[in-house]
Amino acid sequence: MATMRANVFHGAGRFGIEEVQKPTPGAGEALLRVTLTTICGTDLHITSGEYAVRPGLVIGHEAVGSVEALGEGVRHVEIGQRVLVGAVTPCGQCRACLSGHPSQCGREAGYLALGGWRFGNTIDGAQAEYLLVPHAAANLAPIPDSVTDEQALMLADITSTGFSGAESANIRVGDAVVVFAQGPIGLCATAGARLRGAGLVIGVDPDPHRRAMAKRFGADVVLDPAVGDVAAEVRRLTDGGADVAIEALGTQRTFEGSLRSLRPAGTLSSLGVYSGKLDIPYDAFGAGVADYRLVTTLCPGGKERMRRLLEMVRNGHFDPAPLVTHRFRLDDIGAAYRLFGGRADGVMKVAITP
Amino acid sequence: MATMRANVFHGAGRFGIEEVQKPTPGAGEALLRVTLTTICGTDLHITSGEYAVRPGLVIGHEAVGSVEALGEGVRHVEIGQRVLVGAVTPCGQCRACLSGHPSQCGREAGYLALGGWRFGNTIDGAQAEYLLVPHAAANLAPIPDSVTDEQALMLADITSTGFSGAESANIRVGDAVVVFAQGPIGLCATAGARLRGAGLVIGVDPDPHRRAMAKRFGADVVLDPAVGDVAAEVRRLTDGGADVAIEALGTQRTFEGSLRSLRPAGTLSSLGVYSGKLDIPYDAFGAGVADYRLVTTLCPGGKERMRRLLEMVRNGHFDPAPLVTHRFRLDDIGAAYRLFGGRADGVMKVAITP
Amino acid sequence: MATMRANVFHGAGRFGIEEVQKPTPGAGEALLRVTLTTICGTDLHITSGEYAVRPGLVIGHEAVGSVEALGEGVRHVEIGQRVLVGAVTPCGQCRACLSGHPSQCGREAGYLALGGWRFGNTIDGAQAEYLLVPHAAANLAPIPDSVTDEQALMLADITSTGFSGAESANIRVGDAVVVFAQGPIGLCATAGARLRGAGLVIGVDPDPHRRAMAKRFGADVVLDPAVGDVAAEVRRLTDGGADVAIEALGTQRTFEGSLRSLRPAGTLSSLGVYSGKLDIPYDAFGAGVADYRLVTTLCPGGKERMRRLLEMVRNGHFDPAPLVTHRFRLDDIGAAYRLFGGRADGVMKVAITP
Amino acid sequence: MATMRANVFHGAGRFGIEEVQKPTPGAGEALLRVTLTTICGTDLHITSGEYAVRPGLVIGHEAVGSVEALGEGVRHVEIGQRVLVGAVTPCGQCRACLSGHPSQCGREAGYLALGGWRFGNTIDGAQAEYLLVPHAAANLAPIPDSVTDEQALMLADITSTGFSGAESANIRVGDAVVVFAQGPIGLCATAGARLRGAGLVIGVDPDPHRRAMAKRFGADVVLDPAVGDVAAEVRRLTDGGADVAIEALGTQRTFEGSLRSLRPAGTLSSLGVYSGKLDIPYDAFGAGVADYRLVTTLCPGGKERMRRLLEMVRNGHFDPAPLVTHRFRLDDIGAAYRLFGGRADGVMKVAITP
Repeated sequence: MATMRANVFHGAGRFGIEEVQKPTPGAGEALLRVTLTTICGTDLHITSGEYAVRPGLVIGHEAVGSVEALGEGVRHVEIGQRVLVGAVTPCGQCRACLSGHPSQCGREAGYLALGGWRFGNTIDGAQAEYLLVPHAAANLAPIPDSVTDEQALMLADITSTGFSGAESANIRVGDAVVVFAQGPIGLCATAGARLRGAGLVIGVDPDPHRRAMAKRFGADVVLDPAVGDVAAEVRRLTDGGADVAIEALGTQRTFEGSLRSLRPAGTLSSLGVYSGKLDIPYDAFGAGVADYRLVTTLCPGGKERMRRLLEMVRNGHFDPAPLVTHRFRLDDIGAAYRLFGGRADGVMKVAITP
Repeated sequence: MATMRANVFHGAGRFGIEEVQKPTPGAGEALLRVTLTTICGTDLHITSGEYAVRPGLVIGHEAVGSVEALGEGVRHVEIGQRVLVGAVTPCGQCRACLSGHPSQCGREAGYLALGGWRFGNTIDGAQAEYLLVPHAAANLAPIPDSVTDEQALMLADITSTGFSGAESANIRVGDAVVVFAQGPIGLCATAGARLRGAGLVIGVDPDPHRRAMAKRFGADVVLDPAVGDVAAEVRRLTDGGADVAIEALGTQRTFEGSLRSLRPAGTLSSLGVYSGKLDIPYDAFGAGVADYRLVTTLCPGGKERMRRLLEMVRNGHFDPAPLVTHRFRLDDIGAAYRLFGGRADGVMKVAITP
Repeated sequence: MATMRANVFHGAGRFGIEEVQKPTPGAGEALLRVTLTTICGTDLHITSGEYAVRPGLVIGHEAVGSVEALGEGVRHVEIGQRVLVGAVTPCGQCRACLSGHPSQCGREAGYLALGGWRFGNTIDGAQAEYLLVPHAAANLAPIPDSVTDEQALMLADITSTGFSGAESANIRVGDAVVVFAQGPIGLCATAGARLRGAGLVIGVDPDPHRRAMAKRFGADVVLDPAVGDVAAEVRRLTDGGADVAIEALGTQRTFEGSLRSLRPAGTLSSLGVYSGKLDIPYDAFGAGVADYRLVTTLCPGGKERMRRLLEMVRNGHFDPAPLVTHRFRLDDIGAAYRLFGGRADGVMKVAITP
Repeated sequence: MATMRANVFHGAGRFGIEEVQKPTPGAGEALLRVTLTTICGTDLHITSGEYAVRPGLVIGHEAVGSVEALGEGVRHVEIGQRVLVGAVTPCGQCRACLSGHPSQCGREAGYLALGGWRFGNTIDGAQAEYLLVPHAAANLAPIPDSVTDEQALMLADITSTGFSGAESANIRVGDAVVVFAQGPIGLCATAGARLRGAGLVIGVDPDPHRRAMAKRFGADVVLDPAVGDVAAEVRRLTDGGADVAIEALGTQRTFEGSLRSLRPAGTLSSLGVYSGKLDIPYDAFGAGVADYRLVTTLCPGGKERMRRLLEMVRNGHFDPAPLVTHRFRLDDIGAAYRLFGGRADGVMKVAITP
């Protein structure tokens, strides 16, 4: 029986590289030889036990690789082809997918939220030598030669999620947009706001290094939330409030700051993963009748989304390369988790090579 | 000096009919002789002191009337013409109006939420013999002969708001929609959901009379929230959750019930006026990444909105007449407030004749 | 070798029932035993040789049936289940499908227009005892018990297409809508306009029987294009032009009438299949800068679309039953074609039983 | 009686600078002292007699100026303030404006197309020392100090129109967009496509200088329509067709090229002013059922639109300055028309100082 090395979760704080069975693709599936993977903030929630997955699961949901084997019925891709697979892998054929909500792909009826996020959540994930891809016909995007593995890797979740914060908000040309938190996703949201034609983009983060990165990713102005009332400053800079606020962290503080930064009829586009109760203060909410919109978005996936993001990189319209600050071998993934989890050494994202 | 009788607010619990100065229209304004007005739930918030307005204000924001006098520069309407004016009176020319958010009409910069709601809020209102209409060029809608005063009166706020709950939710043909609370606005939201092509409309209300009205206004199924877990029942009836939930009351319970009734990627369209903090439970919210949308809407106003609603009534596509259950003279408005505030005698809406 | 009876096309004017091989479902496919099928206007274009398909093809694209056999990997449906399959059968997994254009489903690159319309076009169709359904996971919709076969049959193409004329036009509550031609698709467009909240629906057709049907399907006013200038009459009835015109025939005359009926910034939603050049007269087009929109729509398919339409029928919000005016056995399909092609005896649609 | 110098139209080929009465602002109007104006392609249609306006009219519709006098009721702007006024001047209060179609602003009923374009069309225009601005409350946009007169001037029509070609097309991140014709409006459409997040922008123009400018304004690839089949080349570069084609000239050839460049379900966004009949070839149109959309847009105006465009320039996200290639005094406007009309000396746009 063939085996492979993979990062297996066994319980809160217990995970690491071990030998597991190398999978074989069934009908409609593909097997990738992973050439590059990474760690996401969500993986930290999993390894800490905050977000529950089953023990024994291989974790990780971002991967670049080459096609190792194809199950029956998978066409339009070749063995050996270099491909990107999104963090979310919609089937394209269920009720959610056919209703235009592929990220919520799931069972025919009574499906659960987040159904389209499978890797390292409901099926084995990407921090491994090989990755079994479900619904392969809908989820393998060839990578153009001029796009590097590191660039492509950043598109699977970080860029797709960050951009979606701007896309879901329906930004119009000339809008004022504020982005709360400038981690990897917030930086991509900042870039995404610019890509949609924002007139003014304000980046908010307490970390001076991240504020500097924000300017590099397209922020016109950066603000430190530790200094003064950020929402009031946003309202001052925008003559009454931002048209759009993007929340990219997942805390009550950034959520409320986003809400208080808006002008009437503004849109709060939320990307954060929240825990506990979220409060909407009555006064900040215009008592519920100020025409505010609150939209939330799970990372868009599927090969067509990936193709579009790859096209942005290929033509030089967006470069996620600066997000990769550190590199590790798969066997050293413990060190990578410690660095990334501790936000040490100015880390943004790590690249991990099996 | 000419005077008129009007319902003047003086402080929490202190209001009543008195003689006040009859207004004169300035440039861009019109004076209506009010032929029918009514009381809104918001007026109860005002008279109880819960929602603050300045003492001395004439309250009420719904009116049908005839044009008594026109200020300079108001064209396209004639003296004596029977017109409807919306509860919200946008100017059409400020930043909010020109950005597509006329309900949030207001000062050029730094405008306040709810800016377009002026009558009985920031200027004298409709519970009076005469009503001064600002921005008259944008706010007077002629009433077709075949539409009665009582029908037209119900459009100014109740119908416009209720329908907007369905419109803002972007209902698609065949959607499952649940409407929490079947008061006047909830009933119009129910009708609005049908008018947008919903496939299944579920009406929720503890009052059996209102549930019966809900069926008359288009609900396919009605549920009593006092019996069992309404959200679970909605999820059962819809194989996993409603596509759209409309909240038409303004309480934590109905808000949370709406949220828990949704399928992933569903839309919560909120019409209620909330007070205090509103909680979004983490689990009901898919941790923030279930592609839920939460939209809030203030009553759309302006003469074109009113024209469209009048057209629906004129052609028999919607009849709000059953909402008017009781009738009073303006001098008896105290009794009308007591009946309406106490929800006595199956009251839905009252019609008040100056 | 098992055989079945089917309507095979051999060339312009040459087609008829014959014994052909009964198909066997491969991976991802399903075999239906057809219980009811029908003839579409497009089938007349095919049998006349106007629209080219390959000789030997079984024609027809509308079917109700029961599941006879399932290929590998098809779940969520059971043998014997009564199902509806749409005229267009998207795969859900190609670039067009994943871009939100499932009707244009097709090859990965360079795909042809109308790619999602397969039955009786690029693969064997529905006028047969059995029908092989591709991409079965995305295309089989269970029929609720309370919906009849004849009702369901009308949804596969006629209703889905007709409704889409209203849906693609983004009708708003209170819009004035004119529908040119009141054949089966035009009648469904008329009903669709009402289902989206139109304030005034005008139906246009030279046939008095069809004008009477139009009123039954929701038209407020009907016009005879043989009497006077229809577009001028529409502009008169709507104080300057319809907000939306739906073209449901496919001729220069109805296209141009639609265009001339619009008010500035109006939308022409075109459903017709055109041949030859289509002229857009300069004056009717506002010289190209009147903010007109022209949208075209191919019948939306897929099981979720069918589920939504079935839900409309199940809850009594739409009843297509009156469209079925004549019934035939499959062996008598020649007579059915003659009746339907000749528009004899007030025929709207025929129901054909294998 | 005060007079001013202005460019007056007297008939085909007959126009020039003369002394005319200096206007006085009435209620709701403002008088601008024009500091910079320009000539548009539409002005050439007018002076050639191709587009009819009344003799005696002052022509031109683009102006930067300072507020000289204000009529009654105009607030939020001060005498002496430097302002931009759009080419289209919506009132904000009529049926078209309140329906979300301000460019088609006009009479209450039966309004004509292009109603919002008034300057140099239905009222005196901008090629003059002074300009009377109607509906001033909705149409005066203060110019930030850091934006030059020449930059602002390019926004009134050219940039607003060009950008709108991209905006109306609903470009999505990663879309392939082709822009036919790279004159001033086409260049702004090219820039607009990039500002909306296009993944690949292809610029088409026979003039090598304009192709070079196209690259400067954001085109990834430029094509010469004189060499080979441009539409075929676009389909090749995009693996089957562009998602969006923007037509920015107004000829059958560019219109048809745009249509033939599209993939199924693509959008043709047309900005050109057409004359004569426009043909839609049956085959290029997918017989009318390929889910193509054809949208047309008249220059969006109003002070909020101008504010948004000024914000793009102020923050360095777009610079229209390179469009101004030649400068003239108002008294030399004849020479300016000859140069601009003859497309001599690489002229893109001229700046004319009164």
